[in-house]
Amino acid sequence: MVAQVIDGKAFAAKVRGQVADQVAKLKEENGITPGLAVVLVGEDPASQVYVRSKGKMTVEVGMNSYEHKLDVDTSEEDLLALIDKLNNDPAVHGILVQLPLPKHLNEDLVINSIDPAKDVDGFHISNVGLLGTGQKSMVPCTPLGCLMMLRDYHGSLSGMDAVVIGRSNIVGKPMAQLLLGDSCTVTIAHSRTKDLPDVVRRADIVVAAVGRPEMVPGDWIKEGATVIDVGINRIERDGKNKLVGDVDYASASQRAGAITPVPGGVGPMTIACLLANTLTACCRANALPEPEGLTA
Amino acid sequence: MVAQVIDGKAFAAKVRGQVADQVAKLKEENGITPGLAVVLVGEDPASQVYVRSKGKMTVEVGMNSYEHKLDVDTSEEDLLALIDKLNNDPAVHGILVQLPLPKHLNEDLVINSIDPAKDVDGFHISNVGLLGTGQKSMVPCTPLGCLMMLRDYHGSLSGMDAVVIGRSNIVGKPMAQLLLGDSCTVTIAHSRTKDLPDVVRRADIVVAAVGRPEMVPGDWIKEGATVIDVGINRIERDGKNKLVGDVDYASASQRAGAITPVPGGVGPMTIACLLANTLTACCRANALPEPEGLTA
Repeated sequence: MVAQVIDGKAFAAKVRGQVADQVAKLKEENGITPGLAVVLVGEDPASQVYVRSKGKMTVEVGMNSYEHKLDVDTSEEDLLALIDKLNNDPAVHGILVQLPLPKHLNEDLVINSIDPAKDVDGFHISNVGLLGTGQKSMVPCTPLGCLMMLRDYHGSLSGMDAVVIGRSNIVGKPMAQLLLGDSCTVTIAHSRTKDLPDVVRRADIVVAAVGRPEMVPGDWIKEGATVIDVGINRIERDGKNKLVGDVDYASASQRAGAITPVPGGVGPMTIACLLANTLTACCRANALPEPEGLTA
Repeated sequence: MVAQVIDGKAFAAKVRGQVADQVAKLKEENGITPGLAVVLVGEDPASQVYVRSKGKMTVEVGMNSYEHKLDVDTSEEDLLALIDKLNNDPAVHGILVQLPLPKHLNEDLVINSIDPAKDVDGFHISNVGLLGTGQKSMVPCTPLGCLMMLRDYHGSLSGMDAVVIGRSNIVGKPMAQLLLGDSCTVTIAHSRTKDLPDVVRRADIVVAAVGRPEMVPGDWIKEGATVIDVGINRIERDGKNKLVGDVDYASASQRAGAITPVPGGVGPMTIACLLANTLTACCRANALPEPEGLTA
């Protein structure tokens, strides 16, 4: 079997298109323009690239983008004051503080100072708790993107055996909650798992989120399974820099029923879901119906 | 193989003894007496029994017990005012609102009005979020009791295959988080699971928390596995009322390595862990070291 490729780039473009349509409708029918504020502290080059690209796509879907670039030495007090201002600004529906923060700033404290209703990254402890009890929350973007792709490919996920490899707070754990919410039987595997090949071989759905290049070989994949590869690892091969996932794509794509490539799989979905979350936050703030197909 | 019986009644007594010792030490060395406030609204007979028994054991371990019994018609406003008072009372280290509440009261709202640091039931959304991200939290009493028994029997749980049957917010989901925190490979199964016997047969640890009498037969249990039965189901058999678990004890105890009976297994641990949580909350409130062996 040769797997169907789940084209994350095309799917993300489609999601952004849906967001843009609904933003246009919001403007026309309700006179509301969703707004996303992104806060960047310091000059980390990778963070600068992300922030620029988020700002660009925010504007492209018709939302307002507010970029706040602060000096690397910004005090916690000043950062918290800015977040407080954004929390109270009715034009701002989503707030994202780009991580990592410089070391003198307490990330947990900063993230938990964001109004949970505006926490479009879904990292606030209240949103983790809401997701963990099956209530409406802001859902972390990367696992939300994985869920959207799985729903799009399978329709209902109910009763499927899903294995999440990796137990990070940003991907693995919320991914497991989302799959459980869609009634998968969910197994969370990690570095201490005794027989990982055996665990992965049972799964109808494999989500790999470990951050180790090509650690899942094809022969761990059940024939016909769906493979979502969250890993983005930079390696050198044949003297060239290359991006690879946590799954060995060449062999896994010979056994899987469907698979996301790296790059061009999960990656592009993250920003698309950030925009979807901002739209959702805006609808909730205005007591309007949730945007269809864009929430967990 | 005939299973070792995990005697929850004896273990709970031991935990209460540890709590009593540490309470005595707190009083002597720091002049602090931990206090637990229990709020009961209305006159549900089962709730009255629980509250009485909690109050009695609280006093037995040397803590202060504050019982607040409110009329069934108490308004949300009055209940929230009482909780606010308890939140601000330095003599109160733990607050428990007995559930279920009368229908005119919003349970989520009431529970989330408790100071998370005093939320000894561990139901506040912030505590769910803290547990869900591996941070210090107040942990729900029943799953904490199960974890203590498992640790006591096995020592380290790292790398063990654990299956939790049931995905309730009160037991199944927090249990899965705790087992994951102890580095088990955790599977959460439920009513939509396709092949439950097969899922259970893989497990070194089975936690059954479904609320269906004897639904797990012995032949689902892997030889030598540890079985924790959270179910407490009232059935009629041979014309008599009887309490049974979610596991068929007669057959499961022939295959398991260790098993908790019903009654006398998980049940007695719940109040013991409530007292442990109150002690933990008191230590944290006074910036003292956490009580050893009594936290997640």
